[in-house]
Amino acid sequence: MSPPIYQKMAVIGCGLIGSSMIRAARAAGAVGEVAVFDASEAARARIVALGYADRVADSAADACRGADLVVFAVPPMAMGEAARAAAPGIAAGVTVTDVGSVKAAIAAALIAALPDALVIPGHPIAGTEQSGPDAGFAELFQNRWTILTPQAQVQAPYQAADDTPYQVAVERLTDFWTALGANVELMDAAHHDLVLAVTSHLPHLIAYTIVGAAADLEGVTRGEVMKYSAGGFRDFTRIAASDPTMWRDVFLTNKDAVLEVLGRFTEDLQAMSRAIRWGEGDKLFDQFSRTREIRRGIIAAGQESAAPNFGRDVRTTETPDTKSQ
Amino acid sequence: MSPPIYQKMAVIGCGLIGSSMIRAARAAGAVGEVAVFDASEAARARIVALGYADRVADSAADACRGADLVVFAVPPMAMGEAARAAAPGIAAGVTVTDVGSVKAAIAAALIAALPDALVIPGHPIAGTEQSGPDAGFAELFQNRWTILTPQAQVQAPYQAADDTPYQVAVERLTDFWTALGANVELMDAAHHDLVLAVTSHLPHLIAYTIVGAAADLEGVTRGEVMKYSAGGFRDFTRIAASDPTMWRDVFLTNKDAVLEVLGRFTEDLQAMSRAIRWGEGDKLFDQFSRTREIRRGIIAAGQESAAPNFGRDVRTTETPDTKSQ
Repeated sequence: MSPPIYQKMAVIGCGLIGSSMIRAARAAGAVGEVAVFDASEAARARIVALGYADRVADSAADACRGADLVVFAVPPMAMGEAARAAAPGIAAGVTVTDVGSVKAAIAAALIAALPDALVIPGHPIAGTEQSGPDAGFAELFQNRWTILTPQAQVQAPYQAADDTPYQVAVERLTDFWTALGANVELMDAAHHDLVLAVTSHLPHLIAYTIVGAAADLEGVTRGEVMKYSAGGFRDFTRIAASDPTMWRDVFLTNKDAVLEVLGRFTEDLQAMSRAIRWGEGDKLFDQFSRTREIRRGIIAAGQESAAPNFGRDVRTTETPDTKSQ
Repeated sequence: MSPPIYQKMAVIGCGLIGSSMIRAARAAGAVGEVAVFDASEAARARIVALGYADRVADSAADACRGADLVVFAVPPMAMGEAARAAAPGIAAGVTVTDVGSVKAAIAAALIAALPDALVIPGHPIAGTEQSGPDAGFAELFQNRWTILTPQAQVQAPYQAADDTPYQVAVERLTDFWTALGANVELMDAAHHDLVLAVTSHLPHLIAYTIVGAAADLEGVTRGEVMKYSAGGFRDFTRIAASDPTMWRDVFLTNKDAVLEVLGRFTEDLQAMSRAIRWGEGDKLFDQFSRTREIRRGIIAAGQESAAPNFGRDVRTTETPDTKSQ
């Protein structure tokens, strides 16, 4: 096994992503030592019990001392405060990254708090609807994309200085994520925020809304909604079970892009509503046919299996016929 | 094994549901003979090749002759025509049912076409996003609900006559679905259509719309949408890959209930949009927290497993830690 890519990784916030990074990095031999800080005392106790860390620190600064990689894995709006708290422990030139689902706002917060660090914002596009240190698993990032949004060279504090150390740091962080099983892509932060507004933020907003609306509809009881959920609704509840704090922060920190794609979705939904009201079957059929292509593309891109699911993980894997299409 | 519940089942339309019913009924020994008709010649050839039927007939009427159970498993708007075509083969007093996702409109079409049959509309709430005779599997209905919407006793043609044969037929059909593994519930057709508008029709409409909107958004390529779909979007594409003909028909035949719940959803979505625009974090957090309860209810009702999925069926089942919550 090759030597570790980082001698000491400090992880600030040890939920699903933080704990999965630790498991994956250890499995890959990508880090020497791991120090962890989590603001929750209960979480710290679990981290100790699960044996994730060489050291569970009492403060963010303490966890960071001596680290050559610092990872902030807290909800988007907690990033700035966490970075300010960790700052005394982070030496100049240390690589700092994060795993937040929004990039422009978080990048600004991290750079403001840590002007002398090499801040390389990041976002592994992987997750489950579960949270907390117990939720982590080493395979989470396998064959998933991690987007890094390195600061443009014109941006302070790298404008005047030699940016070679920064470029080297980006390459090293790329190697690290690759070792964890991810495919790495570099992207502009604003573009990331628009792309993810489409592929992740809007779907979550919609899922939260439909599950909420169904919960208190006149004429249909909650019991009925739960009982007959296998017809499609159930799949939305899975997404709508994601961490509320994180998602609140996502919508507050990526407001513009989310409202933009939401506007577009609302327009299209109104067109669908009109087509239903006026009985325009051809229009509906055309729309329902073209969405199949997109799914075929996703399967071809290796981001999903073709096997049907619908809440039947175990049974369908035992039924070869159902995978034939 | 007890004797078959029906001596001869005729299945008109052999897609995912029709073929799954045949597999499940045979596995349970619930039918003697099976005759099938499908309007598609290609499907008929597959049905022969898959050995589903004792007889693949050349017409619906021919398939029905001698049957004591006739199942219409065609798209909602094709039900009336299929029933009219089958009518010459269906004797008075034969039990006729269907598997359509909408009940009031289909019930009316079947009763009009078959006034002398014992029409008991039905809807198994189970499915995958796949279609065609190859998609069927025997376990599809296991632990899922099948809703029957027997005609009210006041409704013609049973108003004046003795309704005992009808009640006996309902009990027998209930036994049949139970033998196939389903839980059976009797319900008023209009109420069925409202409940399913919430738990199935609206989710499909939303999924089709969001996938369509993402497909031609300015500033984000289709390639990017597919590549970064693991953040939530992917799960919508699964639902949006369902059969376009069937879903067009659902929206056209359950228009009122769908528009009603869609109106409620749109209101709530606008409230969410406003909360994002004005930065009302508490409102978002409250909404995102209450949706978790619904999901817990669904898991408790046995209609979903608690294991995380997110396109990782195989890996997550190998990782016990991920099931700990």
